Amino acid sequence: MNKKKYNVDGDAGRKAQIQFADQKQEFNKRPTKIGRRSLSRSISQSSTDSYSSAASYTDSSDDETSPRDKQQKNSKGSSDFCVKNIKQAEFGRREIEIAEQEMPALMALRKRAQGEKPLAGAKIVGCTHITAQTAVLMETLGALGAQCRWAACNIYSTLNEVAAALAESGFPVFAWKGESEDDFWWCIDRCVNVEGWQPNMILDDGGDLTHWIYKKYPNMFKKIKGIVEESVTGVHRLYQLSKAGKLCVPAMNVNDSVTKQKFDNLYCCRESILDGLKRTTDMMFGGKQVVVCGYGEVGKGCCAALKAMGSIVYVTEIDPICALQACMDGFRLVKLNEVIRQVDIVITCTGNKNVVTREHLDRMKNSCIVCNMGHSNTEIDVASLRTPELTWERVRSQVDHVIWPDGKRIVLLAEGRLLNLSCSTVPTFVLSITATTQALALIELYNAPEGRYKQDVYLLPKKMDEYVASLHLPTFDAHLTELTDEQAKYLGLNKNGPFKPNYYRY
Amino acid sequence: MNKKKYNVDGDAGRKAQIQFADQKQEFNKRPTKIGRRSLSRSISQSSTDSYSSAASYTDSSDDETSPRDKQQKNSKGSSDFCVKNIKQAEFGRREIEIAEQEMPALMALRKRAQGEKPLAGAKIVGCTHITAQTAVLMETLGALGAQCRWAACNIYSTLNEVAAALAESGFPVFAWKGESEDDFWWCIDRCVNVEGWQPNMILDDGGDLTHWIYKKYPNMFKKIKGIVEESVTGVHRLYQLSKAGKLCVPAMNVNDSVTKQKFDNLYCCRESILDGLKRTTDMMFGGKQVVVCGYGEVGKGCCAALKAMGSIVYVTEIDPICALQACMDGFRLVKLNEVIRQVDIVITCTGNKNVVTREHLDRMKNSCIVCNMGHSNTEIDVASLRTPELTWERVRSQVDHVIWPDGKRIVLLAEGRLLNLSCSTVPTFVLSITATTQALALIELYNAPEGRYKQDVYLLPKKMDEYVASLHLPTFDAHLTELTDEQAKYLGLNKNGPFKPNYYRY
Amino acid sequence: MNKKKYNVDGDAGRKAQIQFADQKQEFNKRPTKIGRRSLSRSISQSSTDSYSSAASYTDSSDDETSPRDKQQKNSKGSSDFCVKNIKQAEFGRREIEIAEQEMPALMALRKRAQGEKPLAGAKIVGCTHITAQTAVLMETLGALGAQCRWAACNIYSTLNEVAAALAESGFPVFAWKGESEDDFWWCIDRCVNVEGWQPNMILDDGGDLTHWIYKKYPNMFKKIKGIVEESVTGVHRLYQLSKAGKLCVPAMNVNDSVTKQKFDNLYCCRESILDGLKRTTDMMFGGKQVVVCGYGEVGKGCCAALKAMGSIVYVTEIDPICALQACMDGFRLVKLNEVIRQVDIVITCTGNKNVVTREHLDRMKNSCIVCNMGHSNTEIDVASLRTPELTWERVRSQVDHVIWPDGKRIVLLAEGRLLNLSCSTVPTFVLSITATTQALALIELYNAPEGRYKQDVYLLPKKMDEYVASLHLPTFDAHLTELTDEQAKYLGLNKNGPFKPNYYRY
Amino acid sequence: MNKKKYNVDGDAGRKAQIQFADQKQEFNKRPTKIGRRSLSRSISQSSTDSYSSAASYTDSSDDETSPRDKQQKNSKGSSDFCVKNIKQAEFGRREIEIAEQEMPALMALRKRAQGEKPLAGAKIVGCTHITAQTAVLMETLGALGAQCRWAACNIYSTLNEVAAALAESGFPVFAWKGESEDDFWWCIDRCVNVEGWQPNMILDDGGDLTHWIYKKYPNMFKKIKGIVEESVTGVHRLYQLSKAGKLCVPAMNVNDSVTKQKFDNLYCCRESILDGLKRTTDMMFGGKQVVVCGYGEVGKGCCAALKAMGSIVYVTEIDPICALQACMDGFRLVKLNEVIRQVDIVITCTGNKNVVTREHLDRMKNSCIVCNMGHSNTEIDVASLRTPELTWERVRSQVDHVIWPDGKRIVLLAEGRLLNLSCSTVPTFVLSITATTQALALIELYNAPEGRYKQDVYLLPKKMDEYVASLHLPTFDAHLTELTDEQAKYLGLNKNGPFKPNYYRY
Repeated sequence: MNKKKYNVDGDAGRKAQIQFADQKQEFNKRPTKIGRRSLSRSISQSSTDSYSSAASYTDSSDDETSPRDKQQKNSKGSSDFCVKNIKQAEFGRREIEIAEQEMPALMALRKRAQGEKPLAGAKIVGCTHITAQTAVLMETLGALGAQCRWAACNIYSTLNEVAAALAESGFPVFAWKGESEDDFWWCIDRCVNVEGWQPNMILDDGGDLTHWIYKKYPNMFKKIKGIVEESVTGVHRLYQLSKAGKLCVPAMNVNDSVTKQKFDNLYCCRESILDGLKRTTDMMFGGKQVVVCGYGEVGKGCCAALKAMGSIVYVTEIDPICALQACMDGFRLVKLNEVIRQVDIVITCTGNKNVVTREHLDRMKNSCIVCNMGHSNTEIDVASLRTPELTWERVRSQVDHVIWPDGKRIVLLAEGRLLNLSCSTVPTFVLSITATTQALALIELYNAPEGRYKQDVYLLPKKMDEYVASLHLPTFDAHLTELTDEQAKYLGLNKNGPFKPNYYRY
Repeated sequence: MNKKKYNVDGDAGRKAQIQFADQKQEFNKRPTKIGRRSLSRSISQSSTDSYSSAASYTDSSDDETSPRDKQQKNSKGSSDFCVKNIKQAEFGRREIEIAEQEMPALMALRKRAQGEKPLAGAKIVGCTHITAQTAVLMETLGALGAQCRWAACNIYSTLNEVAAALAESGFPVFAWKGESEDDFWWCIDRCVNVEGWQPNMILDDGGDLTHWIYKKYPNMFKKIKGIVEESVTGVHRLYQLSKAGKLCVPAMNVNDSVTKQKFDNLYCCRESILDGLKRTTDMMFGGKQVVVCGYGEVGKGCCAALKAMGSIVYVTEIDPICALQACMDGFRLVKLNEVIRQVDIVITCTGNKNVVTREHLDRMKNSCIVCNMGHSNTEIDVASLRTPELTWERVRSQVDHVIWPDGKRIVLLAEGRLLNLSCSTVPTFVLSITATTQALALIELYNAPEGRYKQDVYLLPKKMDEYVASLHLPTFDAHLTELTDEQAKYLGLNKNGPFKPNYYRY
Repeated sequence: MNKKKYNVDGDAGRKAQIQFADQKQEFNKRPTKIGRRSLSRSISQSSTDSYSSAASYTDSSDDETSPRDKQQKNSKGSSDFCVKNIKQAEFGRREIEIAEQEMPALMALRKRAQGEKPLAGAKIVGCTHITAQTAVLMETLGALGAQCRWAACNIYSTLNEVAAALAESGFPVFAWKGESEDDFWWCIDRCVNVEGWQPNMILDDGGDLTHWIYKKYPNMFKKIKGIVEESVTGVHRLYQLSKAGKLCVPAMNVNDSVTKQKFDNLYCCRESILDGLKRTTDMMFGGKQVVVCGYGEVGKGCCAALKAMGSIVYVTEIDPICALQACMDGFRLVKLNEVIRQVDIVITCTGNKNVVTREHLDRMKNSCIVCNMGHSNTEIDVASLRTPELTWERVRSQVDHVIWPDGKRIVLLAEGRLLNLSCSTVPTFVLSITATTQALALIELYNAPEGRYKQDVYLLPKKMDEYVASLHLPTFDAHLTELTDEQAKYLGLNKNGPFKPNYYRY
Repeated sequence: MNKKKYNVDGDAGRKAQIQFADQKQEFNKRPTKIGRRSLSRSISQSSTDSYSSAASYTDSSDDETSPRDKQQKNSKGSSDFCVKNIKQAEFGRREIEIAEQEMPALMALRKRAQGEKPLAGAKIVGCTHITAQTAVLMETLGALGAQCRWAACNIYSTLNEVAAALAESGFPVFAWKGESEDDFWWCIDRCVNVEGWQPNMILDDGGDLTHWIYKKYPNMFKKIKGIVEESVTGVHRLYQLSKAGKLCVPAMNVNDSVTKQKFDNLYCCRESILDGLKRTTDMMFGGKQVVVCGYGEVGKGCCAALKAMGSIVYVTEIDPICALQACMDGFRLVKLNEVIRQVDIVITCTGNKNVVTREHLDRMKNSCIVCNMGHSNTEIDVASLRTPELTWERVRSQVDHVIWPDGKRIVLLAEGRLLNLSCSTVPTFVLSITATTQALALIELYNAPEGRYKQDVYLLPKKMDEYVASLHLPTFDAHLTELTDEQAKYLGLNKNGPFKPNYYRY
């Protein structure tokens, strides 16, 4: 299991260690091509990173009793759940209602599928962040006919009020903010290990649920029709299993769908880089010199936003094709060393490790801001800054001044972890795309005629990718053009898509 | 053979008809999925479109004698060529020298490969546009060790001075501006049908050379190591042959390489839409309302440029994913009907047919400009405008006013043919990328160990695509970062690339 | 006195009423051309608006004793000050030191003027927001030779820690966060009414200090060399006094200097509109439809930022020249009614009143966000929303949902008050420009030979405006070109400026 | 008289020298602050610069007879004109009709003023470029009731066909392309020196007409109600006259009106820099490094356009305020020397002289493009390139390669004269704004009650500036918002404007 999951903001000492002696191996192996993961960096890295934006709304006076020790019933008398405080349900319901307004695609799915119930008979066990948006997904799955049981994929990210609201409306939810490691697995187990109920679908984010079933209840896979996995890490685990010939049901990789990729990375980062920098530093972007390391989708988004706000942006790249794109988009392509002394901000988006080294940090000018938009917490060699001659000063939440003996300070954001996860919020719109993709993947796997999917990892069919996109167009009051019969024939296309070959780059 | 090739600007009546009774079939069949071609629209459509920007520099007093009837010798006494006027060589040489300055990648290839001569022994027969840039390519191939014979792929596009310069320096070139159809095939035949010389490589643009050898000298393929094909049309023919099991040598599709695609379409069209509109209409972009039909790479380029110049841009799309991209990029997605009455400019970039119909044209406002940046000449239903009640007035080269009975005029550019080919120039930089790709493809095919390539159509290996990009970086004084050993290991990558998986979208 | 000053966030009922029977008139009269004020909207409207971003750093357990009742001494034994808690000085000092790093122009002034002490002998009484940036200004004035006494211009904006740090280092400061109205005037009086010390310069923000001296100590003006006024409101009062013939010393209007205007409005709002919207709503900008009312500097900034982030922006204007600029910049110019049903966000930047009426609000679509970047709190008719049939729901700080009987919600930010003041921070860079301008204006007035300035309101000489700009260039590592003698002669300019005629528009 | 007027493209040797011994002085004196002129650089510099874009449409076989020696009559029998060839009238008429479609403001003026004829009785003598757009202006003046007589203000800029069309429809026009200097003054004299007709209004562009009347017919000024002057040079002359106390009628400076300034410079140059560079060099902008000297309106336009097209732009400035704007807009502010070795393009927009010196030119890299968008032909020290060691090679119209002994070439455009005038076209929209302003200025001066205007130089009243803008809004289907009575009162404004104080910067 990935240790990073239990990192706590700014507290490297509280790392949790959980050991499973046996089957842990195939999950734990160092991925041989882990860098590739950065190419499809996903918001779902949240499952393996700390998560600071999950604020609680009502927990002013903390209740110290563990939820596991409480006796709680919802208003219908059910006690098949475990949440912090069922009484917070009303507040959580309002959050869910607000989220519903911003997730029109799921709401449309509910409406369209109301008659046919494409998930009738589906028994879905889920393990994801538990937020208002997840709640909208779960209630949509319910409306489509599925039964659901749910645990959290991260010990810190659960919104207690939302969990309460779900429990109140009858969902067996087992999650609260601040679970211990033992709690974490206990909750997962409570979802799976139920008398008289056995899941036939898995929705996972990070692979822990899948792992647990593999380890504890391998026989369960006989009835399971498929796994839908959302995170980079979880997808990686599935490919490992598949390579090892151990994957025993079809799995859908929803992380690499076009819609998710382009929107999650390019468009979302275009906004979150500004948001993250503003909320932490209140800096003015105009006239600032910035170097962005890496010109993939994330780097492209960061560069576009900062250029638009009047920053002067330099780019570093290892790939000559992306480098040429940077040139054509109007950015000077440099090596980091060439500009490190002059820039006001350093942003990493490479998916690589040690892109910013101690040597670079030594040469930065006073007040230089350093942050990471890329992969996990490897890109900036933060460890190299934890030496006696440097003083760390926490000036705000997520903002440290690291002070050199000569008085030079650099401003390190989120201790080198992902700025956009730590210091900005993820727009509901992006979460909506992800949730819709998950729902469609579940429907596809659940309803696929036998034989369509083997015991392998699949991408969402392009037609479904297009369908997810189409469900989000009404948000923008966008009107799609339809092909005439004559045109469809001329193009050799079905009028309803798919419209592009698989290799199309968008 | 594609009839469109012989269309003359504004003269639908001079269409040429050339018939080959037998094997013509597999070239002529209506492509079943021809629309896909638009996804990879290429500058090489020039081979199937008219080509107006190829101006002659010195032909002030036209010489009426056919080059085929002339006796010409170059200064070394050779007469193994057929050009308009060998005396124009000096002027052509200057053009080539200017082009050399803008094609640093080919010049670098010459330098790097000077020692090893990777094309030593290669006998290349080529059929492309004959321009200064082609000359730089040919002389590079020569410098790499190859022998070349060359014909033109279009009866109008040859720059006579450049052809003369090539002939003067010893290249057997058979081409002039204004060939008849008979001349066209005669020239090709003169390249192929030589005593004591047989080609072992083909460089084709449009497939006519390949077709001719298939038809006339099928045995020649025994010695041919491969075909490099540059155009959409030619690539399509090759795939047809391959499907039909008739492709008897490996072929390299250089049209779909990343570098070419993204640069040729996105970046090049971003500039040529402005250039084409300015040169034809002198219009001001600021404040104009424009509808762009299609948001593929070409549409993206057009939209970005016009938005930057202060136009208000609407987009139409059939594909919900591209549609969502248009939304996120800040364009209103509409159906053409919704805005047709209000826009000042209509631009098609769909690859589809009849996107702008007579009905649309009837509803446009006075002075509306209509042009095509997409595919061939099918997008605007120009034929529907050739009716008695409408008056056509040619107001400038490439600009027609079509006048309705009530006095309304629309401004039709290039008679609905490709604006960027007809009314703007193609930057040498783009041609340089294409030519470098062609050279590398020839080297790859010629030197590949037996068995690497079968009798199939291949894409350029990604590593070579990256190499083409890297050769163009010095133009921008761009400095690529190199992976450390540690980083390469972490990423599971070779330090010299390829850096991305094949499905990467850039 | 302006009643709005004492508005409390979200509490319209706590308006303070302070009456000065006699001379109040010339301050209170409805300005006849108050709209003009919007043309030069300034951050200094903060003095008449609420101010939420002034967070306290250390006041966790509130001390209920009034500072006026406390006996405090700084470490040097002085008790000539009145602040919340002198023990917070150290924390405040750190804030000041951080601010110093971002105000290089003032630091440069300190250095350059260290020798000559241009303010030697100056006795400055000031009344401004008391923040870290103000502290840097005050300590700069001290370094230039001046003696200073200071009060707050707003009862909520004082940072207690900074006030403590100033008191600790010997500045007689009379200010704390949460003054009563009586406190407010008592503090001002303590600055002015000192035995053995009489001010000869006034630095005011809002005009209250000036007003107090006029009312209570009119004889003091005999020794006063000039007033430097920063706010729109204060400047307006001065022009009223001047028109009425009652201005008895020269006054410098630093609000309308070029540097302040263009940077404060255009560049600052370009960033703060994004920041304000993100912090309050976490919305995604891409694809959103926005209408911006007013295309002055503020509107231009908002439009540019939102367009760059992928929003579709409409503009309303009353002035045909600004309207034409909007067109040329690529925005559809509409009447609010035309788009009110379709937009996702409404932003006012007009300086006008009732730009968004109840009728507009009734027609907005569900979830429409409404906010004000313009003038005071007049632009949106918020009062019209306080009717029984509408439900208000406070969903976050500064965010209200106003709910119609049919369930439609609009999202009202900052209750219609200035979004950028209430929900985003003001970049130090902008405050630096303002503070530098104030310092230079004080130097100019204090050192001006008699007769240069009459009893009138003056703009900062253009040369000083240019000097302020030049002091900020090093921040950007920007290198100014110097005229050669020959060029200066050719242009008829002094090599050191001023470089432009007064009417130059920038 | 300004010698530059007679410069011929590319032929410095054919400068004309015309001497008026006496009164020449006040026109010829070196302006003491001539640099200021660059601040309001105008398209009307065309009157003192060469003018290449005025192509002739029908003059294929040149007629060598001087128009002065020809006997021509229009179809109504009048011979009160002198043009190249009255038979070209029909072609010219079509050009005028096309221009009418793009000058809706003048057409609207015709309509609105049809009833009242505000120029009834006006006898206007004009001296401007004679183009289709001028013709629309003249015929509008006629429709408003005026009688007009017209000469050309530039010996090369007359469109013969348009002059013929005007003559055919009854306007006494005296102008042709390629006048000698003697012809030039003869034409002007024929406009003024008519039996039984005496002008009461002057419309001048460059001041030559005004000069001639001053010199030859000073008594005429007794009946003249005013002068409307369009060019920088002419305006400068008028201010000189005014200062010298010799201006004997009111004059209107239409060059410095807001609408003209911002649109002519910022928006027009934003487009013409791209157009001029493309037409001359076919270069690709993406990735190019460019230095723009000067960040006034013209520089701002150039920088914005090139940045949008993917160039990397550096800026040089002497004015710290404009410099700071460049920083905030995202451009590195440098000294020319810092980047001269690395840039691909150098563009001057300063209004200064010798901004690019021989020393700079010596250090540029091979293929560097140098051009001038600023003032006259002084900015680049082209004279310094006319030395024996450098070879000039004309590679295209307006494009010279200057070749250093080591083979380095720089690409000099338009020989250092204005790129936008020489190598791109001026959008009709901009000419429409100018012509409308001229018409309104004539109406204003002609109808002003006695005493409103003294013998001085005036700017167009702001209200008229706003009116010009409002007449152009319908082109963009732009809908202006009207103030309510309540709002107008609140703002202290008249509902019909003017809406801004005079110092407003836009």
